[in-house]
Amino acid sequence: MEGNKNAKEKKDKLTDQIMQNPQVLAALQERLDSVSQTPSGYIEMLPKAVKRRINALKQLQEKCAHIEAKFYEEVHELERKYAALYEPLFENRREIVTGNVEPTDAECEWHSDAEDEDKLAADVKNKVTLSEKEDPEAENTKGIPDFWLTIFRNVDMINISLQEYDEPILRHLEDVKVKFSDPCQQMAFTLEFHFGPNDFFTNSVLTKTYKMKSEPDSTDPFSFEGPEIVDCEGCTIYWKKGKNITVKTIKKKQKHKGRGTVRTITKHVPKDSFFNFFSPVKVSGESEEMDEDTENSLAADFELGHFFRERIVPRAVLYFTGAAIEDEESFEEGEEGEEEEMEGEEEVEEEEDEPGNIKV
Amino acid sequence: MEGNKNAKEKKDKLTDQIMQNPQVLAALQERLDSVSQTPSGYIEMLPKAVKRRINALKQLQEKCAHIEAKFYEEVHELERKYAALYEPLFENRREIVTGNVEPTDAECEWHSDAEDEDKLAADVKNKVTLSEKEDPEAENTKGIPDFWLTIFRNVDMINISLQEYDEPILRHLEDVKVKFSDPCQQMAFTLEFHFGPNDFFTNSVLTKTYKMKSEPDSTDPFSFEGPEIVDCEGCTIYWKKGKNITVKTIKKKQKHKGRGTVRTITKHVPKDSFFNFFSPVKVSGESEEMDEDTENSLAADFELGHFFRERIVPRAVLYFTGAAIEDEESFEEGEEGEEEEMEGEEEVEEEEDEPGNIKV
Repeated sequence: MEGNKNAKEKKDKLTDQIMQNPQVLAALQERLDSVSQTPSGYIEMLPKAVKRRINALKQLQEKCAHIEAKFYEEVHELERKYAALYEPLFENRREIVTGNVEPTDAECEWHSDAEDEDKLAADVKNKVTLSEKEDPEAENTKGIPDFWLTIFRNVDMINISLQEYDEPILRHLEDVKVKFSDPCQQMAFTLEFHFGPNDFFTNSVLTKTYKMKSEPDSTDPFSFEGPEIVDCEGCTIYWKKGKNITVKTIKKKQKHKGRGTVRTITKHVPKDSFFNFFSPVKVSGESEEMDEDTENSLAADFELGHFFRERIVPRAVLYFTGAAIEDEESFEEGEEGEEEEMEGEEEVEEEEDEPGNIKV
Repeated sequence: MEGNKNAKEKKDKLTDQIMQNPQVLAALQERLDSVSQTPSGYIEMLPKAVKRRINALKQLQEKCAHIEAKFYEEVHELERKYAALYEPLFENRREIVTGNVEPTDAECEWHSDAEDEDKLAADVKNKVTLSEKEDPEAENTKGIPDFWLTIFRNVDMINISLQEYDEPILRHLEDVKVKFSDPCQQMAFTLEFHFGPNDFFTNSVLTKTYKMKSEPDSTDPFSFEGPEIVDCEGCTIYWKKGKNITVKTIKKKQKHKGRGTVRTITKHVPKDSFFNFFSPVKVSGESEEMDEDTENSLAADFELGHFFRERIVPRAVLYFTGAAIEDEESFEEGEEGEEEEMEGEEEVEEEEDEPGNIKV
């Protein structure tokens, strides 16, 4: 961290300048012990009149945070508006995935990937016309089988909780939707998992709702960076008899100590499953402290909810083909490759911040 | 990357299942060599009818990207609207910083940091009433001296380009503003650096404009993630005589080979300075290739422009006090600390994704 060192040197220099003023020096002497080596240490040393003005700026900054909260409310409103515009496209996607609708030839034209084409004639649209032996049975496949299951397998964050016995159930998953809360309600979004009729449960939709805090905290207004997920709620899954894969039933023989009789008791033990996503741990009230495991499991859950909303649902096909995942990987590899090249160069440049595209 | 390994294993299993179908096997045999080990390898093996439908989903996805572009245009519009709401607060900030306005006592009340108070009575507002020896001279200080210069020193990305001879000039910097482009123009924003009258140049405002691309690329529509900075433009600084710190004048004696006469030539050589920020390198056209140095220097410039717009201008006082910087550092430290704690625990949990707050 060259920059940090540099900053510290300059700060020290400034401190020196201030310290050359004997009056300031005297005033500071008695408090110096409590002054930390952080930038705020510099603030401590400022004249009272200046500190007073800094407080005024802090008040203004708090007002900014409240305006920012209103901005994010309007962005949420805009997201609701655009959700309605995406809806027909997502509906079309669902119908193609389930096989309810067969797209026309025009709808199925697609130019090959620019990269596969060695960037030749990248904007010329070529129909994919690979000479394939047509397998009449395979060609009778309905829709895009295992569309969502394949996505779930491709996304590490989901795959990690996926069990073999989850997969036959997820074959029936036909759509995942995001629904936003109404403007007058607490800011929230609901993930809807739409299932076709199946042998496992009677619900046609499983839901998970994420509630957000969209106001600056009164005790720490400056940490506000926009809405934040603070709680979530699952749903009851109405499992068909003997199909609940989220619990295992253990039968135990118990001997009565006095009488010596034996009875069998049935114990339900929780089992790893993707479907535990719909029974999240409860966020405890402010008075209770959550243990670290609970906190981590909630944090992972919030992260996944966010990822469904921001990435998977809006770009499902790219997670199905793996394009979205390969992009992330090749970006990382590209970065590394670049660095290596730089090291090999003859000219040594001054330290520079890591380059990268700036998305705004 | 346990998750990745897991994903690969599951993919292999699926491949096995597909390969058990002898017809599919025969159809695939001849193409298998060209199938990569990436998720898209799986796509290659799908029946033609399914691939056709995937292309239809890609068309829908491209339409989504264009709707998304419209969404970001509206967000930009919203940012313009909110810029007007922040404006009076920022104007007030400028007047307090320059000392044009002295805030009232009520405007200067501020509760101490919750952390400093050991989280005791965090929402009770306490006036800062440290017993300070008042230095009458220091108390005559006008406004908040070196407000922007201190911010520049605190931000590594700027500090790295800051030279000693830049500092006397930056003492005259009175405000930094962000101006957004009009709706009908190319999406852009301009950073305005407002200077008080000074001995160095005659401009009262130096500007740097960042132009953005807010449309999906026709050859790669899926990489669109919102507006991206693609170009920038500086401004001419009208330096007063002998005050241009961005060049050094080198006098060189040259001897005429034939005649043996000596003449002195003056050469202007560029010099490191923050003020080179206003003379960025040119983005070359599509036909020309930029060299890596130029690319890196542009990338660093775009990153800084983005940082001014998103962080420094909206939260200047937090970069002045260092609170914004300490937050970032303590967040990083906190993360590490947490991991160590987890390792020390007795119970070993299954792999989990890194916890963290989800900002949406």
